[in-house]
Amino acid sequence: MLSNDEQLARLALSSAFEPGDESIGALVAEFGPAELIDRLRTEPNEPDLGRFGRRWQSHNWLQDAAIELERALDDGIEIISPGTPDWPTQLDDLHERAPLVLRKKGPLGLRQAASRSVAVVGARAATQYGVWVAEEMCAQLASAGWCVISGGAMGIDAASHRGALALNGPTIAVSAAGANLAVPASNHSLFARLFAEGAVISEVPIGANPNRRRFLVRNRVIAALAPVVVVVEAALRSGALSTMREADAMGRMLCAVPGPTTSALSAGCNELIRSGGATLVRNADDVVAEVLRVSDDPGSLAQNAATINLFEQRVIDLCTPRSMSVENIAQGVGVSVEACTATLHLLERSGFVMRTVKGWRATSVGPR
Amino acid sequence: MLSNDEQLARLALSSAFEPGDESIGALVAEFGPAELIDRLRTEPNEPDLGRFGRRWQSHNWLQDAAIELERALDDGIEIISPGTPDWPTQLDDLHERAPLVLRKKGPLGLRQAASRSVAVVGARAATQYGVWVAEEMCAQLASAGWCVISGGAMGIDAASHRGALALNGPTIAVSAAGANLAVPASNHSLFARLFAEGAVISEVPIGANPNRRRFLVRNRVIAALAPVVVVVEAALRSGALSTMREADAMGRMLCAVPGPTTSALSAGCNELIRSGGATLVRNADDVVAEVLRVSDDPGSLAQNAATINLFEQRVIDLCTPRSMSVENIAQGVGVSVEACTATLHLLERSGFVMRTVKGWRATSVGPR
Repeated sequence: MLSNDEQLARLALSSAFEPGDESIGALVAEFGPAELIDRLRTEPNEPDLGRFGRRWQSHNWLQDAAIELERALDDGIEIISPGTPDWPTQLDDLHERAPLVLRKKGPLGLRQAASRSVAVVGARAATQYGVWVAEEMCAQLASAGWCVISGGAMGIDAASHRGALALNGPTIAVSAAGANLAVPASNHSLFARLFAEGAVISEVPIGANPNRRRFLVRNRVIAALAPVVVVVEAALRSGALSTMREADAMGRMLCAVPGPTTSALSAGCNELIRSGGATLVRNADDVVAEVLRVSDDPGSLAQNAATINLFEQRVIDLCTPRSMSVENIAQGVGVSVEACTATLHLLERSGFVMRTVKGWRATSVGPR
Repeated sequence: MLSNDEQLARLALSSAFEPGDESIGALVAEFGPAELIDRLRTEPNEPDLGRFGRRWQSHNWLQDAAIELERALDDGIEIISPGTPDWPTQLDDLHERAPLVLRKKGPLGLRQAASRSVAVVGARAATQYGVWVAEEMCAQLASAGWCVISGGAMGIDAASHRGALALNGPTIAVSAAGANLAVPASNHSLFARLFAEGAVISEVPIGANPNRRRFLVRNRVIAALAPVVVVVEAALRSGALSTMREADAMGRMLCAVPGPTTSALSAGCNELIRSGGATLVRNADDVVAEVLRVSDDPGSLAQNAATINLFEQRVIDLCTPRSMSVENIAQGVGVSVEACTATLHLLERSGFVMRTVKGWRATSVGPR
């Protein structure tokens, strides 16, 4: 656990300075948050501190942080920072641009959910096609236990969260506003469900409004959290594509949903696929196959493929190509429902089967 | 020029035996068509000749061939076979499966048109989206002087020919019926234009009806004629995909137009792109870029890119990104319309500019 001092220091720094600033990130990395604040307070004109000294002196940020911390406790908002148990270590791939601290509203454990997650992004002005694909894909991902990470915006973002929530799956919105706010207001009921069942995380203070810059730098957090980023619909110049570039720079796997060449909102996706920048994905199965392909986790496809036994193979075969109830699978392989359920859970963890509305179904990963 | 004997022999053999039969192709390669017929006549039970001897003996095929040749002369149908000047040598890539002889109705020179051609294939039961893309793409290809090769069928085939003809561009239908027939009948007016302005070619006799097998083996001719085959719409199991496999086996470059993942008629295209089997193409520019990339012709992009001079670059810049009339381009670079036209034609041949309804436009090839 972190000392209250460090927690407070990070909150104060993230209130005083806009997120995603490499220079502040570098100073925190060099001195640690508490010592950096000491320096900002005592030597504000030190050249190393650049313009930050003056900004720090202009306001009592530590007092703001204390007030925010109190408010967080009152509102059930968690403060997560490097070193706290719920910090997702993949954010460290952002190095100096990593969030100083995150606020989280919602019951979902951030670190655990992000450890098995897919980021889904796309246009705000999405078409019906894009919305349908995002909802369907994210419902399938959720049913297989993958957490859907998106931005909480209108269009593809909202459809992705909705799809996951439709099957009560885990989903996290990375907001450009304070974690307690429903922004945009039109997504009010979506945020109500995210607060109650998923999570909304943010690197700006509780209650803070978003702005253009915050929307842009927020994208790097979405890109960093998951091993794979899927763009469902995106115009040629768009925020979604900027998220893809962030993800690419961090070595994340890029996936794109193809669309009609006549649709401006598929132009970004088709271009990414054409240039070889992204793999074409059609559905959750395709996405899961990519995740497992790039995963270096011991539970990854490559290692499990060899160790799958004959009994497990029979279970997989029974729910290929259609979903089967656990009862029917158990009967088919001649074991108890309990034993069969345990095997299915193991197979699910390795990505060979997924939960569906009708029971269990093999993913397309196995036979490849 | 071929002797009348060899011409007649090839016509007779192609009447007696179904096209695309490797065994007959091998026998023709071994003995030559005239000697093979001698053997079929004198030693029909020779084991090397297999079942072909009996078939040959069952009918007077040479008489049929003489009648067909007369009919061809009357109807203005050309007979093209290996060794005649209009034979497209890329058909030799089919080896033993190459057509024994082709019948051609229509003014377009086969060899010359095919030397600068793109094959476009797709579903008969195409969607409006597919039809639109095929028409637009083929109109653009035609305006840039590329010959569009397709199968004359309903759906994508018809749309491709129509697109090319809309700009009076060169286009060839490879028919599974006799070259004089309009099959399917619903494409009657399309075939009327192909007979008058393009060409219909066929490896089955004049007047012959198509059948399932002839439709299938016809695909290999489409695949062989062009360096690049584009599939616009195709279901997962479809004739269009079988053409793509033929093309792949011959080392042709495969391109596919992406489509909604929700459309069964784009499923074959999306699958080809996803698996890396085909390059995603959105329009004629993308296709031309692929053709030039795989071309080993001295006029190919790679060689021309280095030799383009400053004057040519100014011409290209003037018609980027919008079409310009030759008058305006000439004025812009300060030369006569004649000189400018000559340069544009040279640049067109290397794929840097294309003719449009409004004049000339740079392709997206140059700046790559």
